[in-house]
Order: sequence, then structure tokens, then C-alpha cells
Amino acid sequence: MRTLKALAEVFSLDFRGDPDTVIDGIGTLANAVPGQLAFLANSKYGAQLASTRASVVVLSAADADNCPCACLISDNPYTAFARITHLFDDGDDIAEAIHPTAVIDVSARIGNGVRIGPYCLIGRNAVVADGAQIHGHCVIGPDCHVGENCVLLPRVSLVKRVHLGQRVRIHSGAVLGADGFGIAFHEGQWIKIAQLGGVRVGDDCEIGANTTVDRGAIEDTVLENDVRLDNQIQIGHNVRIGAHTAVAGCVAIAGSTRIGRYCLIGGAAGIIGHLDICDKVVIGAMSLVTHSIREPGEYVSGTPILAKPEWRKNAARFKQLDAMARSLNALKKTQE
Amino acid sequence: MRTLKALAEVFSLDFRGDPDTVIDGIGTLANAVPGQLAFLANSKYGAQLASTRASVVVLSAADADNCPCACLISDNPYTAFARITHLFDDGDDIAEAIHPTAVIDVSARIGNGVRIGPYCLIGRNAVVADGAQIHGHCVIGPDCHVGENCVLLPRVSLVKRVHLGQRVRIHSGAVLGADGFGIAFHEGQWIKIAQLGGVRVGDDCEIGANTTVDRGAIEDTVLENDVRLDNQIQIGHNVRIGAHTAVAGCVAIAGSTRIGRYCLIGGAAGIIGHLDICDKVVIGAMSLVTHSIREPGEYVSGTPILAKPEWRKNAARFKQLDAMARSLNALKKTQE
Amino acid sequence: MRTLKALAEVFSLDFRGDPDTVIDGIGTLANAVPGQLAFLANSKYGAQLASTRASVVVLSAADADNCPCACLISDNPYTAFARITHLFDDGDDIAEAIHPTAVIDVSARIGNGVRIGPYCLIGRNAVVADGAQIHGHCVIGPDCHVGENCVLLPRVSLVKRVHLGQRVRIHSGAVLGADGFGIAFHEGQWIKIAQLGGVRVGDDCEIGANTTVDRGAIEDTVLENDVRLDNQIQIGHNVRIGAHTAVAGCVAIAGSTRIGRYCLIGGAAGIIGHLDICDKVVIGAMSLVTHSIREPGEYVSGTPILAKPEWRKNAARFKQLDAMARSLNALKKTQE
Repeated sequence: MRTLKALAEVFSLDFRGDPDTVIDGIGTLANAVPGQLAFLANSKYGAQLASTRASVVVLSAADADNCPCACLISDNPYTAFARITHLFDDGDDIAEAIHPTAVIDVSARIGNGVRIGPYCLIGRNAVVADGAQIHGHCVIGPDCHVGENCVLLPRVSLVKRVHLGQRVRIHSGAVLGADGFGIAFHEGQWIKIAQLGGVRVGDDCEIGANTTVDRGAIEDTVLENDVRLDNQIQIGHNVRIGAHTAVAGCVAIAGSTRIGRYCLIGGAAGIIGHLDICDKVVIGAMSLVTHSIREPGEYVSGTPILAKPEWRKNAARFKQLDAMARSLNALKKTQE
Repeated sequence: MRTLKALAEVFSLDFRGDPDTVIDGIGTLANAVPGQLAFLANSKYGAQLASTRASVVVLSAADADNCPCACLISDNPYTAFARITHLFDDGDDIAEAIHPTAVIDVSARIGNGVRIGPYCLIGRNAVVADGAQIHGHCVIGPDCHVGENCVLLPRVSLVKRVHLGQRVRIHSGAVLGADGFGIAFHEGQWIKIAQLGGVRVGDDCEIGANTTVDRGAIEDTVLENDVRLDNQIQIGHNVRIGAHTAVAGCVAIAGSTRIGRYCLIGGAAGIIGHLDICDKVVIGAMSLVTHSIREPGEYVSGTPILAKPEWRKNAARFKQLDAMARSLNALKKTQE
Repeated sequence: MRTLKALAEVFSLDFRGDPDTVIDGIGTLANAVPGQLAFLANSKYGAQLASTRASVVVLSAADADNCPCACLISDNPYTAFARITHLFDDGDDIAEAIHPTAVIDVSARIGNGVRIGPYCLIGRNAVVADGAQIHGHCVIGPDCHVGENCVLLPRVSLVKRVHLGQRVRIHSGAVLGADGFGIAFHEGQWIKIAQLGGVRVGDDCEIGANTTVDRGAIEDTVLENDVRLDNQIQIGHNVRIGAHTAVAGCVAIAGSTRIGRYCLIGGAAGIIGHLDICDKVVIGAMSLVTHSIREPGEYVSGTPILAKPEWRKNAARFKQLDAMARSLNALKKTQE
């Protein structure tokens, strides 16, 4: 039973309203029903506050006077809300045991309190540290290390030489440690380069569904601590991503590029190989980074979306841009 | 044994030629061999008709006179062809039974005539309704519902709180119901927001291989009826896609965006979060939608592909565009 | 024990230095430790040679005089290095046997020396030829053929009618032979077109993690010999990719497009359907190909990445480009 007073105490928040108000779920400001807790973190949604049916709203002190119901007050309502959500999460569905169908190599070491779901494979010299949860159908290959309290949702592959820190969470379908894309062209055909490195993932990282992180050619591919990867991201071999960087879905980062700390990479952006991106860089959605970036800030490529007839006539001029610039310069000279 | 006459009857089509012509397969106009049925739906391929070796061609009345062989006549030859193809499909390979290796939670409910392949996992409170086919290696997590006559090809994950309508078809490697990408930045690090919503998929949807559809943060991510998703698409949490919308491969749709009915989203297009796209919008391949669209029609972004030397000199001018526009305006003023 | 002399003999290379130098691993020029072999193939990294701690460097004759340690000399150091790497690869972790949990249809044919890992499914009329290695959790569907000495890493799906040549290597999460995206619009809803073709993959191809290759609608989707696909690529139905073409990660190729031999497709590029791309075409990263290409060479689309304020003011002019061109032409006429 979660009451307003209990939440205020657990999260060290001030509150207004009946301390015994019971909260039995989470809703949005617009659609919450009585009994639910909502939040207001963005003034854009302030107009929804007056009419909310939520029983409690998490908001800033500035908004408290306008709240029609009980509230929890935070300097950072979004963070407070983020923390509260976990009270209402029913967790992952996995038994507190190692399922008898898991195939575990005799050389693997399994820690205390580890849970392993049905049909998992744990390979040669793999380590699964204390408290880790490996859901069904995961494949943990040779020389992999799953740190303490990691959670691998169903159907994750750690192919080879993947080292996870603590509390890493990996979603279904992700593949870490597959061969990097290393090939040499010789006399009309491709020769494969063996990929002898691994993948090292720091503490508190999250890796989305169907994301791929290749293992390094010689040295390792590295995600530092608290890197957050959304779904369907491709990280090439020997990439290094700095701590606290967040990457949105479908981003492609080519081999050997280094990305700094506290960067935000927008959805479906691309970064070519062998670049250096410094700390605190923001890349726009679907932008392509083709050179190193040495100054923090926001970077974008591409053109605005237009109705097709408008797009067509303007895009047709793109290939005349250089000629236009030359004509313009010539005209300016004439003018002078 | 399928004869011209039998097909004409089953699909209510007129025909010309020997009613006993036997059709034992499907071919293209260009490469069909005798015994096969081909189709002509696009006048662009009309020239191939005269030389086809097909035994039967599905075509419009206007093309029938030019057909060198038997034909089936339809106002919509492509639709007629689409329907006929299913007669020649040998179906999915799955036994009419529940494989003994499937691990089914005691709280799960399994309907009549359900087929479940080897090594499937069916979790807590999951429902698999009558006639559904769950191929091998599928994982159906807690509180998921698979509607009547759905087909999940091998290795599909429904992670948590995924509700499928009837006759939904999901391809190998797709992941529905993984955590949405919800994080809050606080004092130098990321805090995860529990993802408390689910995914609701309407009737007759199809979801491609390795496509991901995240579950909602608070409310649900929704695909309405007859939504068609190709492969490797990423649908963020709380997206809503209207009925009959088709999305080509590799599209990325960020969180909380709403897409209307009867839209066509081109391959590898991107749509940023929190937008509203109205009904009957067509988005060009690899275009990026950065604002809401309120008028039906076709929208495109990007520049034409050029040979690299030509591209380089024109692209270099892109960053001078504003200066060029200002110069041009100045010149025009001088001129006046 | 690998010595300098032994390597020189095996790979027919000249060498300088103590023939008994022992090599126990591979490193980069910059970070190798004694005992390791490094390579210098790109003069850009020449400065690292003087200070390398590697025991042996593979390099060209021109660089040999500057080498501070033993060296192996090759006209093509990168190729020589590529070959040497395999000596230091510990291979894939799979027992020399068929695991008892593999579910193999009675109609399937399994060759000599085949290894099949735990929980694999081998379907109706499937063939796994001599020496193939099928890692755990692979699903090989009906009428598939795995050629001699192929390697399928864990969790690969060959859904239906997929024919692999010899020595094909497929990474975790890849899906070949799923339904192509074929739908016909009729009276307000979509009708599925059965996908009656297959996938044919030539010899020596490699297919990356979570890449998808759909089976054809009527005829087959084809990868010729020695095609190299990186991760998360989407190949639509009836695409044909010529021999020795390499495709970087996240590329999307729409249905029925034909790509020539010896092409290089940059990361996250897109190619729309029904095009013809000739041999020896190079496509830039994230470029979109919208028309057929009949001349070898390099092709690019898109705009350079800019700091956001600079991007914004220039991008805003993109939609005025046609008007600018018209104004400019008018001014030029006035001038004449």
C-alpha cells in the first residue's frame, strides 16, 4: 500500500494534501484515473494540470499552487517521477533458480543468487557473477563475463570475449561480441581478418533490443560506464563510447570512432569510422558525421522536409549550387 | 490440380483459353515456364507479354487481346494475383501439436488447436488463443496475449504486456514489448524510468523480421488494425500507428509520435518524437520528418545523389547558402 | 610456438631480424607489447613505427629500414596481416558432435563431420552438408540447404527455401528467408502476396549480426559469391548482389534492385527498389540512391554536418533554392 506520505518519505519530497492518499498506479496528466500518480515536468503540459483526475501529481514548487489534487514537490519532478515509477514495476518474470535445461559448460563459473532461464547456453570459461539474471534463450559464449546484478532479457547473445560490468541491462535480440567487419581486398576477392579483440561494457549501461556491438579486431570495443543505447543501434569494432553518453535508436557508428562523455546521439544518425567526437556533443537525428568534432555543441546535417513538388524543384537546384555561387560572385564583381 | 476454370471460379474472374489448362506454379512474365501463371499489372512490363512462356496470365481486359496464351481477366490484376499466390504457398512448417519441450507457465491459458513449436517459453498469465501458431524458439512473456489465428514465426519475442489481435503475423527476430527508452538525467548520470505500459497490436497486422516495437512508458504503444511493418523497423514507446498504414524497412519512429491511417512511410525514413502525422501521408525514402504534418500528400527531404566530384563542389556551397541568399537580395535591391 | 621464421615460411614473406623471435599475439603498432606482432599498412600511421614495442611488424619493403624491431615484408602488408591473424584466432566454441537436444526432422539430411549445437531446429527436407557448424539455437527451416563448411553462429534463422553455398559464415541474429514485404492495396485494406521464392547465397559470403535477407516473391533473392554483408543490413525480396560486393552496416536495399560486382556500399546508405547499379560503384555513407547507376565511380547524397546555428540558417534557404536560382537568372539577363 503506497500512500502519499510514504512516497514523500522514501524520496525525501515535500507534499501537499491528505497524507493517507493511496496511490495504486501511474498515469499521464491527461488520462490518469483516481488512485493514480502523474507528473508535470514540462511547462508545455501545464494546461493539463487543472483538469487532471490523478490523485497525486509530482511537480515543481512553482506549479503546486495550481494543482487541483494532492502533490509531491521536487526541484526536479522528472527525476522524482523516474524514481517513483520503479515502485510500480512488477519486474521481470524469472524464477529464482537455474533452469535444468540450461546448458552450462563445466568450465563456467556461476555466482551466488544467479538466475538462469530455460534453454540458455553458457560457454567455455564464461563467468556469471552474483545476482545476475539471465533470461531464457540467452547465449553466453566463450570467455564472456556477466557482472554482478546484470539482467539479460530473453534471447541475448554474448558471442565471444564480452565483459559486462555491474548492473548492465540488455534487451532481447541484442548481439554483443560478433565478429567486427574486417576484410582486406586482394587479387579480386575478400580476405577475412580474424577479430581477436573483445567488448568491454562498463557499469550501469543499458543496451536496447536488437542492438549490435561488434568485438574489436585487435583491441576491444568499449562502452564506458552508464552508456545508454536504444534499440537497433550498430556499434562497429573498436569504437569507444564515453561514460554517460546516450544514443537513440537506429544509430550506426563505424569502426574505431571514439565518442566522448555526456554526448547525445540522435536517432538514426551515422558516424563514420576513425573519428574523434569530444565530450558533450549533441548530434541531430539522421545527421551524418563525416569529420571529427572538437567543440561541444549541437551538430546537424540534412535538409528540411518539404511537400514533394516543393522539394523536387528545390532539390533539382542542389546540383547547380556551385554554378549559382560562381554566377553570383561574378555578378557581385560586375556590380563593384 | 488447379485448372484455369477452377481458378476463374474460385476468384470470380473471367477467362480466355482452354478451361482445362493446368497451372502448377507461379512465374514472372519474363521467366515463367509452361505450366506457370504470371501477371501483368503495370503497363511498363507490357512488352514482356508477347514473348511470355507462361500458360496463363492474369491481366486487365485491355491487355487480354495481346495475350499469347490463356488469361484470367480482372479489373485489378495485382489484387487477383495476390490472392492466387496463396494457392501455391506450401505454408509454414509446424506440427499440429504442442511440442513437449515448450515451457509453459501453469498460469498461461492455451486455446484450442494451438500449435507451439520446440523450445518456446510461455510466461506468467500469458494467453494463446485458438488456432494460433507459435513456431519454435518464441518467447511469450508475462501478461502477453496472442489472438486467434496469429502466426509467430521462429524466434519472436513478446517481452511483456504485448496484446496481439487476430491473424497477426510476426517474423523471425522481431521483439515486441521491450523497455521503451526512457531515461532522466540527474546529477551527472542517467536514471531509468520504469516502462509500465504495454503494446497493443490490432487485427491483421504484419510485423517484419528483426523489427522492434517498444512497450509504452505509462500508456500503451499501439498499432491499429491492418498495419504492415517491414523488417528492421524501430517503433519507440507510446507511438500510435493508424489502421492500414504500411511502413517500409528500416524506418525509425521516435517516442509518442502519432501516425494516421492509410499512410505510407518509405524505407529508412525517420520521424522524430511527439509529432502528429495526419491520415494519407506519404513519406519519401530516407526522409526525416521533424514537424507535424496536417495535410495529406507526399513529403520528402534530402538531396539528389550525385557523382562525388559534382556532389563535393555543390555540397561545399550548402554552408554558404544563407550568405548567397543575402548577397542575391542585396543585388536585387541594387538593381531596383 | 610461432616464430618469425615459421611465419615467413608459411606466408612466403621476406623477413629481417632474429628468425627465432617468438610471436604470441597480435597488437596495434601503438599498443603492442613485446611478443606481439603488429602491422603498418597505411603511411598515416608511419610515425607510430619508431616507438612501437611490438616484436615483429608486417610492413612494406619501403618501411623496413625504419623498423626498430624484426619485420615481415610484404607487397601488401594488410593482406599478409589479414592472413596471419587467423593463426591467433581460437575459433568458435562448438563441440564436434550433434547435440542431443537438436530437433532434426526425419526428412533432413546431415552430412559428415557436421556439428550442431544445443536446441537447434532442422526442418523438413533441410540439408546440412559436410563439415558445416551450426551453433546453438539456430533454426533451419524447410527446404533449406547449408553448404559444406558453412558456419552459422548462435541464433541464426534460415526461415524457408534458403540455399547457402560453401563456407558461408552467418552471425548471430541474422534472418534469411523471411517473407518479402509484398502487399497489394484493395478496397481500403492490404492483401498479402505469398512469397514463393527463396534466397540463394553463393560461396564464401559473410552475413552480419541481425542482418535480414528476405526470400523472393516469385524468383529468388540472390547474393553471388564472396558478398560481404555487415550487421543490421536489410535486403528486400528479389534483390541481386554481384560477386565481391561489400556492404557496410545498416544499409537498406529495397526489392528487386540489382547491384553489380565489386561494389562498395557505405554504411546506412539506402537504395530504392527496381534499380540497376553497375559494377564497381561506390556509394557514400548514408546516401540515398534513387535512380539506376550505369557508370562506375563514387556517388554521394546529403549535406555536410554543421554546427546547429549555421545549419539552421542555411537549411532554411534550401526551400528558397529554386526562387534564388530564378532571381539569379533574371539578374544575369538584366546584366547582359
